[in-house]
Amino acid sequence: MNLPMSMDQALTYARANRERFINDLMEFIRIPSISTQIQRAPDIQRAADWLLSRLERLGFQTRILPTGGSPAVYGQRLSSDASAPVLLLYGHYDVQPAEPLEEWSTPPFEPEVRGENLFGRGASDMKGPLMAYLAALESTIAAGPLPLSIKILIEGEEEVGSPHLEALMAREKELLRCDAVLNGDTLLLRPDLPTIVYGLRGLAYYELHVETAAHDLHSGLFGGASPNAGQILCELIAGMHDSQGRVTLPHFYDDVEPLAGEERRELARIPFDPKEFLSQSTGLGIIGEEGYTVTERVGARPTLEVNGLLSGFTETGSKTVLPARAMAKISMRLVPNQKADRVKAQLANYLQQKAPPWLKWEVIDLTGGPAAIVRRDTPAMRAAIRALEGAFGAKPVFAREGGSVPVVSLIQNLLGTDSIMMGISLPDDNLHAPNEKLHLPSLARGTEAYIRFFHELIR
Amino acid sequence: MNLPMSMDQALTYARANRERFINDLMEFIRIPSISTQIQRAPDIQRAADWLLSRLERLGFQTRILPTGGSPAVYGQRLSSDASAPVLLLYGHYDVQPAEPLEEWSTPPFEPEVRGENLFGRGASDMKGPLMAYLAALESTIAAGPLPLSIKILIEGEEEVGSPHLEALMAREKELLRCDAVLNGDTLLLRPDLPTIVYGLRGLAYYELHVETAAHDLHSGLFGGASPNAGQILCELIAGMHDSQGRVTLPHFYDDVEPLAGEERRELARIPFDPKEFLSQSTGLGIIGEEGYTVTERVGARPTLEVNGLLSGFTETGSKTVLPARAMAKISMRLVPNQKADRVKAQLANYLQQKAPPWLKWEVIDLTGGPAAIVRRDTPAMRAAIRALEGAFGAKPVFAREGGSVPVVSLIQNLLGTDSIMMGISLPDDNLHAPNEKLHLPSLARGTEAYIRFFHELIR
Repeated sequence: MNLPMSMDQALTYARANRERFINDLMEFIRIPSISTQIQRAPDIQRAADWLLSRLERLGFQTRILPTGGSPAVYGQRLSSDASAPVLLLYGHYDVQPAEPLEEWSTPPFEPEVRGENLFGRGASDMKGPLMAYLAALESTIAAGPLPLSIKILIEGEEEVGSPHLEALMAREKELLRCDAVLNGDTLLLRPDLPTIVYGLRGLAYYELHVETAAHDLHSGLFGGASPNAGQILCELIAGMHDSQGRVTLPHFYDDVEPLAGEERRELARIPFDPKEFLSQSTGLGIIGEEGYTVTERVGARPTLEVNGLLSGFTETGSKTVLPARAMAKISMRLVPNQKADRVKAQLANYLQQKAPPWLKWEVIDLTGGPAAIVRRDTPAMRAAIRALEGAFGAKPVFAREGGSVPVVSLIQNLLGTDSIMMGISLPDDNLHAPNEKLHLPSLARGTEAYIRFFHELIR
Repeated sequence: MNLPMSMDQALTYARANRERFINDLMEFIRIPSISTQIQRAPDIQRAADWLLSRLERLGFQTRILPTGGSPAVYGQRLSSDASAPVLLLYGHYDVQPAEPLEEWSTPPFEPEVRGENLFGRGASDMKGPLMAYLAALESTIAAGPLPLSIKILIEGEEEVGSPHLEALMAREKELLRCDAVLNGDTLLLRPDLPTIVYGLRGLAYYELHVETAAHDLHSGLFGGASPNAGQILCELIAGMHDSQGRVTLPHFYDDVEPLAGEERRELARIPFDPKEFLSQSTGLGIIGEEGYTVTERVGARPTLEVNGLLSGFTETGSKTVLPARAMAKISMRLVPNQKADRVKAQLANYLQQKAPPWLKWEVIDLTGGPAAIVRRDTPAMRAAIRALEGAFGAKPVFAREGGSVPVVSLIQNLLGTDSIMMGISLPDDNLHAPNEKLHLPSLARGTEAYIRFFHELIR
């Protein structure tokens, strides 16, 4: 069997072209494909076109899959051997907004290499992992034919919660049918600790609006007797956690499966150092739900967070108003078995119980997706383990990740396939934050792991 | 004595010129003299120039009194009789910002008469009362000489807390020396209820900043274990009141003089109707400190209010961040004997006690001024009572007002003179809010009351 030889050739090719792949990635990062900002639609299109032309150069048949929003990019390069396994690569080409711009050391869309890192919005979430896919594909294809069919789906709305993905996948179910899925949109816990994520939290994201008067009131004339929307919003939000860090929405934990002892022991194997956590997060403290480790809190327990607050007068100077309106963006990270519609009802129940009866309030659905757990005992999973051991020289750790990748449960439900989640972004890569970066040695190792995974799948 | 005759002539003149005075006021409102917005400095200057030319036409000697910020306008028209009493009129020509603009029915700086009301930013606070001064002066002067010397001081920074007024008044103490002061920057409680305000709350206005991390964090990766600045700000603010509506800052009430029984009985004479209050305020409820009437809560008790909130992502759509920073504008209305520096220390003590030890927080002073109480038994006060009885045909009510007019205590301290506070703005005039308006019949009655006051002072 000539597979080991073609694998070695592919790995050699990847190493020889490392600089070029980095330059290509920088070109890709320069396209500010921010899906949450409507005025970026032309950049979204440019990013999709960039991917199309890259895939075409690699011999892929490509299609733009239109959605109600940003288009998805699809490509396939099928083996002439009809019995070859089919691997679907999933990714997203859209990125988070870059605000607050003043906190970036270099402009977010002018990528710059400093030391071992490449800085830029999307460098690790997830244009870097997409580049690892493309580099691994190019290297593998250059080394000769392989009895493996590759499909690739790259959406443009992941950062806004993939609102059209379910409809798209249902429509294109036959096109997307596959035997295994690779998803690089998860974390590598340390550069030397190969990581397979087997659990993801879901997301339920809302806007809460409260209104206390028809318009802002003079705080001198009415302060002390007329209600203040900003004040009431703060009280409502403060009441959403108790002193043990638990969420107080009625029945919030009813659907939460308790963590099994086996799983808690497995999660405890993931190294945790408070100093390192503080340094990675840049946070000034560690908080959370009593009775759970930090690894469990961020990966395996549900949370409720304020993502934004706006009320009253916020410009420079002073304005003596009682705000009539206040808004909070509130999101919850969900664990398996929690459902977004039940969580929304729990939030509404909380507000019915806690809000003064005269308060006008409204909860607006923004985005969301369920949590996911994948099996750890499939052939594809074993291929992934071998690929990571080969690339990193170490046994991978199984982790549950706090973020949400809605596509994983969609693929489970629609195609019946579990995803192999092995990414290359480090916890200190500033995902969704200023100075997002990609660790370039991890890009190289990830590329190598993906090349090995392609070959291990057909062993 | 020919005074009644000249007074009747002046009142006749005022009635005959009513429409012209309204047109002049509309011209004045069209100048967007917003003191809190630095880019409005040219409009501030235009408003000052407009007043200067009006006063010069009335035969006043005028001067611009420079300050570190917006200039003050000064004018005097002294009687040839050196023993004539000196009346100082105080006012301000600056206005509040007009935001939120979308809530105005007509543009804030394009005044429009609808029914009995004139709509526009500054219509009642306080370009309307300034117009009542100017109309009363013009009418009185037209009716012939009066043994009364008039001085007028119109500042341009009242809406930002009069930061330069104390230094200015200390410097110009001799110029401003007077026997009585008229201040029209207070409320008329009802169109048919002539009102003299004898107490004003002070103001202490701060910005509170909290910081929990170097930058915003990914809510999936860190949510549940890393702190959230928006959440913590809400908890801190929620804790600033107890369930009885009392402010919880340590020792906050120590300096507050208890309300005497006589005063509570006098305040209880002010009519209060919850329905009317809700309609005037447009508020959806009535809240406040237990054990006090609404009249006491808004006039005679200290308060703490959130005037603005800002944290995290507040644009359209969703961004899954844990905010690293959060800001609140927080102001307190003070009653006599409370001091801004002590209140600031109480706020800092509260934060020291309640904030997690690792939290970075800062309290920035924005503006403030002490509360004031004036005597109700002076000759000038008796002249005011007679003037209001004459103009309204009803006995005036004595009220304490919740707003702050820092100049009243400054004049008390620097010149030793109590102010007569009788304004023409109604509680439903939307002061500091969208759709600010002036009740035009009250402008006419106020003009009449001021004409009568000029004459009553020399009786």
